[in-house]
Amino acid sequence: MLSEAFEISTSGRLVTDITDRVEAFCKEARDDGIVHVFLPHATAGLALMETGSGSEEDLEGVIARLLPRDDRYVHRHGSTGHGGDHLLPVFVSPSLALAVERGGLALGTWQRVVVIDPNRENNRRQVQLRLVGG
Amino acid sequence: MLSEAFEISTSGRLVTDITDRVEAFCKEARDDGIVHVFLPHATAGLALMETGSGSEEDLEGVIARLLPRDDRYVHRHGSTGHGGDHLLPVFVSPSLALAVERGGLALGTWQRVVVIDPNRENNRRQVQLRLVGG
Amino acid sequence: MLSEAFEISTSGRLVTDITDRVEAFCKEARDDGIVHVFLPHATAGLALMETGSGSEEDLEGVIARLLPRDDRYVHRHGSTGHGGDHLLPVFVSPSLALAVERGGLALGTWQRVVVIDPNRENNRRQVQLRLVGG
Repeated sequence: MLSEAFEISTSGRLVTDITDRVEAFCKEARDDGIVHVFLPHATAGLALMETGSGSEEDLEGVIARLLPRDDRYVHRHGSTGHGGDHLLPVFVSPSLALAVERGGLALGTWQRVVVIDPNRENNRRQVQLRLVGG
Repeated sequence: MLSEAFEISTSGRLVTDITDRVEAFCKEARDDGIVHVFLPHATAGLALMETGSGSEEDLEGVIARLLPRDDRYVHRHGSTGHGGDHLLPVFVSPSLALAVERGGLALGTWQRVVVIDPNRENNRRQVQLRLVGG
Repeated sequence: MLSEAFEISTSGRLVTDITDRVEAFCKEARDDGIVHVFLPHATAGLALMETGSGSEEDLEGVIARLLPRDDRYVHRHGSTGHGGDHLLPVFVSPSLALAVERGGLALGTWQRVVVIDPNRENNRRQVQLRLVGG
């Protein structure tokens, strides 16, 4: 099984687009397959969403309501509200499987692969890729 | 890798049951496997849930609270609140992997495969299927 | 495809750590692969989260806000608020794919595989495992 890992910086950004990196990995696919994208981190998740049209800012609002950045959390260390960051992966999984076709990702027009990282304590993230079939 | 795509209409429905279509695709499985179900769309997701007992209506309420249909969104086009539709896939992923056993899906008694589509702008949805193993 | 199923009791616990069981199944992997974890149940989900540091209690609060345990649900049977349990898998999927490397799971330091079960009506849960590649 073809696999690869790379690092990204999410410094200051809730949403980081990694589509091009995942797409480059899938360039070697000669047939239909699936690529598994995985983050070995406890305070970030993966999603498909449109980027560049304002949804990144809209997502800030939804996450602020779902996981308020205040001192309510039992899991308390780092900056205020960091306990909420630990719950994000329950709702936005760090595991994502994507359809691959010969030479690339089989995404819809507006779908981009993104890392959702509300954590202000850790800016370096590793992304793991595995190609099934293809 | 066996693959297939089909179209559905989600017109007027938040929840559309596609279990029978996915099940039919898995009929060819002769052994244990996994089926990957994928929507190439930026405003819809896939889930497993019981249908026909009222949960469809209950889900309307939860999504209305999580992603209020008002004018708060930066990503603004189409009908009021459509910016929220663009955030649904972050929480309800358009990618879903299901267990397959010889001849069909290995689902629990009350589990149905559904498309969750809050979008009033687009009623035609494509569903992509890939069989791993089986 | 290597597969296995086991039962757990989630009695009285929202969060049940099953990492050791999944890890044991992956011991036979000799190379990179993916393990698919699946719950054939309509009122529970799977997630990756840190355990033992208070996030289990924090998650109780988030789920209580997202899916209030009251009599608002159309899908009404069992104890008060059980209709909300039926919506949990829409947001916390019972399907989870994890990266495997030779001899075990390729998880981050703080990631644990957990069953999220808000249901007070059913304490016995089955977990299905399938190894792809490896």
